[in-house]
Amino acid sequence: MKTHTLLMPLDMHLHLRDAVMLENVAPLSAYSFSGALVMPNLVPPISNAAEVVAYKERVLAAVPNDNFEPYMTLFYKNYDKTFLESVADEILAIKLYPAGITTNSEGGVSSFDIDEMRPTLQVMSDLQIPLCVHGETDGFVMDREAEFMSIYELLATNFPKLKIIMEHITTKAAVDMLDKYDNLYATITVHHLLLTLDDVVGGMMQPHLFCKPIAKRPEDLDALLCVALEAHPKVMFGSDSAPHPQHAKESCGCAAGIFTAPIALQLLCEIFEQFNKLENLQDFVSDNAQRIYGICPEFKEVTLEKRPFAVPENYNGVVPMYAGETISWAIETVD
Amino acid sequence: MKTHTLLMPLDMHLHLRDAVMLENVAPLSAYSFSGALVMPNLVPPISNAAEVVAYKERVLAAVPNDNFEPYMTLFYKNYDKTFLESVADEILAIKLYPAGITTNSEGGVSSFDIDEMRPTLQVMSDLQIPLCVHGETDGFVMDREAEFMSIYELLATNFPKLKIIMEHITTKAAVDMLDKYDNLYATITVHHLLLTLDDVVGGMMQPHLFCKPIAKRPEDLDALLCVALEAHPKVMFGSDSAPHPQHAKESCGCAAGIFTAPIALQLLCEIFEQFNKLENLQDFVSDNAQRIYGICPEFKEVTLEKRPFAVPENYNGVVPMYAGETISWAIETVD
Repeated sequence: MKTHTLLMPLDMHLHLRDAVMLENVAPLSAYSFSGALVMPNLVPPISNAAEVVAYKERVLAAVPNDNFEPYMTLFYKNYDKTFLESVADEILAIKLYPAGITTNSEGGVSSFDIDEMRPTLQVMSDLQIPLCVHGETDGFVMDREAEFMSIYELLATNFPKLKIIMEHITTKAAVDMLDKYDNLYATITVHHLLLTLDDVVGGMMQPHLFCKPIAKRPEDLDALLCVALEAHPKVMFGSDSAPHPQHAKESCGCAAGIFTAPIALQLLCEIFEQFNKLENLQDFVSDNAQRIYGICPEFKEVTLEKRPFAVPENYNGVVPMYAGETISWAIETVD
Repeated sequence: MKTHTLLMPLDMHLHLRDAVMLENVAPLSAYSFSGALVMPNLVPPISNAAEVVAYKERVLAAVPNDNFEPYMTLFYKNYDKTFLESVADEILAIKLYPAGITTNSEGGVSSFDIDEMRPTLQVMSDLQIPLCVHGETDGFVMDREAEFMSIYELLATNFPKLKIIMEHITTKAAVDMLDKYDNLYATITVHHLLLTLDDVVGGMMQPHLFCKPIAKRPEDLDALLCVALEAHPKVMFGSDSAPHPQHAKESCGCAAGIFTAPIALQLLCEIFEQFNKLENLQDFVSDNAQRIYGICPEFKEVTLEKRPFAVPENYNGVVPMYAGETISWAIETVD
């Protein structure tokens, strides 16, 4: 039986929510990942040191095993130097949302006035706090990410020492930025390595494949696969796994978000094996992130086996991507 | 109170289904339209004279009033001359579906081999039977209609006397064809004069705004509005109103189709008034179709009034577009 072992897998973009949902989903990530960058878009968003610390405690309390590190983030606002210095030790990054662009992002940035943002971003640069960005404008749904490239350029050129991570990129336009600016990095989800808009609305409409940014065109998928499969040194895995209650997905006005955390490594093995690139998966799913963020994750060794695996209809009430379908890799052991 | 009167409104692309659904929806179209071109994609599709006659009888039996004409269509296959001559008097047009491209289209055309199709299309041309076409390839969902333009060109140039109606067009590419080939015509739905993909998946996912062909880009909407509002002489209104049971729309794997029949004239008044083009609506919704198809519909005078109208949550169990929302025109009298 073909197996593949991953060391210290990291999910560098994860939504764990709070309360009951946190308790339902955190153990699933903690089981197979050494650590995850935990998004701050709760209601209200995590925006001070006390909230970071308290949220981290709640995450750890929800996790049964002790070899999982929640890397915490702060919700971007214009903060002053004193504040940023006081919170720097508690966080790994600050996450910037354009206002209203996705789930729980209402308090985000409403205009990218670089002079207004300069004090915050300059201190972040000085303190070496990376800036994670949800890069979408409020334009036409298929153009939102590409339209955001000029803002990435503005940020990258104005703060050349600031590490800027283009989160969950979905377009060739974003891929092309990686080699253009030294300080631009990216995360890529597993679902954006599998889907185009065709999968979402090309046949029947598929709420469990609906996410933001929405899956794009075939040429975008090709560009994403290209840098992921080669484990481009500036690209990291980030699932953007986003749990919603089943009723919020399967109703009129379905919420955006795909739940992949418990099947992400299995799907990544399937994809990388399909393209004969399994040897690059370790870099994509861990080593690149360790180097980019300068982190040393908890030891974890995950061995996957190539055998049919029926994806459960739900995990603690949350419907995963490919629920009820059979994928070709399964987790065998976690040490 | 502002009013607007329409004479003999025609819906030149309508799905009435069969059995209980037919009984639920046919009266709604018959109330406000003088006639409608009834699509043949039942299961199995309408593909001989006896089926046409029987279906027409079932439609008429479902309609309470006697001033509504169901113009019947046949499902396109390669038919011979004898057959076409025998059925010509029973139908107004033949509807061509690429195989599997939309609801109940499995028996459609799987390859556009013009030599295989020539006998049928030449006889249709000779007998002056228009060809209505669902113009989509099986390509990427946003490109399917534009990719089909080469097939329209092939059909239009090989059969210059055949009237070819590009059904429910959604793109600037299709609009541009109207002035390029004398024998190409088009229908446009009311929902494609209102929606882009943004409305379907740009915010929450909206199953009741999901249809095939899917709503496209803002520049496509602009192009459609342009020819509809000017009542381009080769453009007709066709609702493509497509009823599905509520459970089939509001579930995983939601079916494609928007139900607009009972609110189409109200929405058209709203759109045409908004752009100060109410004087062109009569051509768009009736006179162009009368001239193109050479039909003299039953007399009907529909007067609409500009006043708030709350769209019902459902009509006989079928959820319409904009259910529960308030639109700005209502039907006042039908004579």
